[in-house]
Amino acid sequence: MTSRDRLHLYDTTLRDGQQTQGVQFSTPEKLRIAAALDALGLDHIEGGWPGANPTDSAFFDAAPKTRAILTAFGMTKRAGRSAENDDVLAAVLNAGTPAVCLVGKTHDFHVTQALGITLEENLDNIRASIAHCVVQGRETLFDAEHFFDGFKANPDYALACLHAAHDAGARWVVLCDTNGGTLPVEIGEITAAVIAAGITGDRLGIHTHNDTETAVAGSLAAIMAGARQIQGTLNGLGERCGNANLTTLIPTLLLKEPYASRFEIGVTHEALRDLTRVSRMLDDILNRVPTRQAPYVGASAFAHKAGLHASAIVKNPTTYEHIDPALVGNARIIPMSNQAGQSNLRQRLSDMGLDVPRDHPALPGILDEIKAREDQGYSYDTAQASFELLARRALGEMPRFFEVKRYKVTVERRKNKYDRMVSLSEAVVVVKIGEEKTLSVSESMDEHGHDRGPVNALSKALAKDLGPYQRYIDDIRLVDFKVRITQGGTEAVTRVIIDSEDATGRRWSTVGVSANIVDASFEALIDAIQWKLIRDEAPAS
Amino acid sequence: MTSRDRLHLYDTTLRDGQQTQGVQFSTPEKLRIAAALDALGLDHIEGGWPGANPTDSAFFDAAPKTRAILTAFGMTKRAGRSAENDDVLAAVLNAGTPAVCLVGKTHDFHVTQALGITLEENLDNIRASIAHCVVQGRETLFDAEHFFDGFKANPDYALACLHAAHDAGARWVVLCDTNGGTLPVEIGEITAAVIAAGITGDRLGIHTHNDTETAVAGSLAAIMAGARQIQGTLNGLGERCGNANLTTLIPTLLLKEPYASRFEIGVTHEALRDLTRVSRMLDDILNRVPTRQAPYVGASAFAHKAGLHASAIVKNPTTYEHIDPALVGNARIIPMSNQAGQSNLRQRLSDMGLDVPRDHPALPGILDEIKAREDQGYSYDTAQASFELLARRALGEMPRFFEVKRYKVTVERRKNKYDRMVSLSEAVVVVKIGEEKTLSVSESMDEHGHDRGPVNALSKALAKDLGPYQRYIDDIRLVDFKVRITQGGTEAVTRVIIDSEDATGRRWSTVGVSANIVDASFEALIDAIQWKLIRDEAPAS
Repeated sequence: MTSRDRLHLYDTTLRDGQQTQGVQFSTPEKLRIAAALDALGLDHIEGGWPGANPTDSAFFDAAPKTRAILTAFGMTKRAGRSAENDDVLAAVLNAGTPAVCLVGKTHDFHVTQALGITLEENLDNIRASIAHCVVQGRETLFDAEHFFDGFKANPDYALACLHAAHDAGARWVVLCDTNGGTLPVEIGEITAAVIAAGITGDRLGIHTHNDTETAVAGSLAAIMAGARQIQGTLNGLGERCGNANLTTLIPTLLLKEPYASRFEIGVTHEALRDLTRVSRMLDDILNRVPTRQAPYVGASAFAHKAGLHASAIVKNPTTYEHIDPALVGNARIIPMSNQAGQSNLRQRLSDMGLDVPRDHPALPGILDEIKAREDQGYSYDTAQASFELLARRALGEMPRFFEVKRYKVTVERRKNKYDRMVSLSEAVVVVKIGEEKTLSVSESMDEHGHDRGPVNALSKALAKDLGPYQRYIDDIRLVDFKVRITQGGTEAVTRVIIDSEDATGRRWSTVGVSANIVDASFEALIDAIQWKLIRDEAPAS
Repeated sequence: MTSRDRLHLYDTTLRDGQQTQGVQFSTPEKLRIAAALDALGLDHIEGGWPGANPTDSAFFDAAPKTRAILTAFGMTKRAGRSAENDDVLAAVLNAGTPAVCLVGKTHDFHVTQALGITLEENLDNIRASIAHCVVQGRETLFDAEHFFDGFKANPDYALACLHAAHDAGARWVVLCDTNGGTLPVEIGEITAAVIAAGITGDRLGIHTHNDTETAVAGSLAAIMAGARQIQGTLNGLGERCGNANLTTLIPTLLLKEPYASRFEIGVTHEALRDLTRVSRMLDDILNRVPTRQAPYVGASAFAHKAGLHASAIVKNPTTYEHIDPALVGNARIIPMSNQAGQSNLRQRLSDMGLDVPRDHPALPGILDEIKAREDQGYSYDTAQASFELLARRALGEMPRFFEVKRYKVTVERRKNKYDRMVSLSEAVVVVKIGEEKTLSVSESMDEHGHDRGPVNALSKALAKDLGPYQRYIDDIRLVDFKVRITQGGTEAVTRVIIDSEDATGRRWSTVGVSANIVDASFEALIDAIQWKLIRDEAPAS
């Protein structure tokens, strides 16, 4: 055990990951992601570039307590001023993080063309900036931008830049393949050349991009050549085609040869079991559909479609699986005979407290209905409560509580008395409980006078007067509301997933699907209420 | 030129690619894909397994004329019968293709456990099956299943299987990493060992899977070790995490070192320019949203978000691009984002025909407004048209066309005359053009009698009567509608992005943000119309 080399994992999801087109984390989202990275066992968490944009500064102001070394990103000082007088650098240091990572040029062409300064001035910028951070007691990293292209163009100068940072006290010198164009074989050779030139592997990092679909392999090649820090992002987020995917690299380093027996990382086997959940959480924050084919964590990663494979898997899973999916918190999918589907279904129902005997006549019908509804856009993986209601209906175990006879929602936008455009929604709901009919009306204004929209009005009207059921639903709180268009274009169908919570801390999810978003929301709201009535054992009407 | 080794590209999109969860090609689709592969310059096209399923048989019956060698897939004969009497093998040969590829076991464990036969029987099955195809004048390939795992468990037996196929006359012996678990470094070492054992590289192929995100790198490692045939699929389709992605491998082999100068392939630089189109065509057939981050062909592959990168790209594209996107038929994007600097902004404005001098007083204000709005949930990366309108307003270059005084949208759900619950939405819009005021009303029913929801009704009412502007907007078509909740819970804010298209094929995206989804959609719709009026140079009112 002790003879294995320690590899250090440096996460840049919150900085380089945010360069992904369409990605912009809020500060609370950054805090959630940082907590997940920390629990996973990453060594460094790069939180952003303080001073470059308000969310990044706000994140460092909120300074999460992490076991991982929180790192602020910035760039080497500009020419013509001292490190002490560079305001951009000052903003980075002012974030007060234990570590600082500064990017600087190492490709001669970029120094003279993009920066327009001399090669010597750039070396001086690197030296002075790193030394300035080191003097302040910060662990200092140097991101060598365009290093591989620079090395191929002018190896002596590229190496001189690394030495400038190294000799000024940088804890890590990181070889960045900024344009993502260097293939693994060259990354391995050049990393070995750097080590031969005197930068030892235990101070050397690798930062790759996926422009040739080899960011993971490039990182692995650099490790083989001697680099000991790997920079990457969760789910391979990042500019253009993304950064090296830590969601893939972590299980590979922990489980696969020739790496697992030669190296150790800060992620434990226990934490690894959380990997799939963390990956899905990030997609959830980004409101992205998780990539089915993602290695290790994708829904298809252990799905066996080929008939030959599926039947062999039943005998022995190792025949067509490179690892046990449970090690990364994922699960095997065998879309095969009705028989297997049915035992799966019975297990799920039993988890919900519905014990259904084998060969119950309703089982095939439930499977068919799930499949038909999933074709329409429903998703029962997440909406477990709606799944339970569907099964209860088929099994004849669904009590009759109330019926919504009709509803009407109005959205209006017009000038108010101060001549400002304002919008307001209003909902009327007619509910029948037993022989009793009630009309309720609510509007969408919240306590601050803001319009919260038609779904808010509808939800309030529904919860306003449910007669004998009122006491059961009073503590329901809508905690999340997710909308996804499941078919593009004019045939767009909307899927709404609603997460609800009650005073006991119970959380449940329901789904509705319709071309009409208000109607899809209505369906999910009704399911949410009915599920709660069942759980609290409310009497049928 | 002539000293470069020829690499052979073998496509299995139509066979292994069809193992992707949710993928099932029709025969006409298979014919379309085969034609595209042939035009691209692939060497082999594997069309399926004749006899194993009806679509595959129908494809071979329709036998497309290709320059590429059309290949039928099958498996080695079963034990206990002769190759001549194996009906499965006969069905494969009956497809009448010039080439046949047979998969067979090479991992001792699978021979004894999965097949339940002796190791010698399996060798005999390989020998007899290959010889039987060769005698019939077919180019014969042997897919060595689980080869890498087999070699690690029992190298002598795995090599004996390869020699059995090789000596029986197989043109190609293909090393398959069936479970996708072997990392590039081992693929390179084991491929070299196979060559050292006497199977020459010009008869050796590589077939990898992407379970560790290294299928492309594994193929590249095998080439470096001497293999000369590469098997893969378009867009990396395939079981579980997919096969080696030819859409990535083709440009890498043609454009990137150390491969481009050492090897040649059948794909020309001219055909390469069609790569992005072919990749998108496949997504279109599968009704999938193309992966934005896909290497070379993805919409984000040449998108530059970081401010520092974007300003350098404007000076010289090679600073942050590993290849010219035009070489693969793709294009550069410099999106707006809160990381963008003024140079990025001016470049963007100039692309839109707005030439703004450096130091224009409005520039900082535009950047501030973008930042402030992105904090509220707007996203100008994608919604370029809304960005242009924002900039025009700040620059005083926004004509006054029309004003929406008010609107009202109603969503109703009730029983119809057949006692079925139906929903219907209706929108009333009041528009002022000059001194003229018009009222329009529309409902959400489409031509099939389906309710398309409140946003549909609103969009139709808006487009119904815009007086003098009507002729400019008549050809606007709403092609996509994306909804995202940017803050969770009860404070949820909705972002709507609308993609529009007109008769000239122009496409533009607009954004709206509000707690009220109808209002967010309204904002994006208004932007879409105004942008079109500007592009068509409609006169101000």
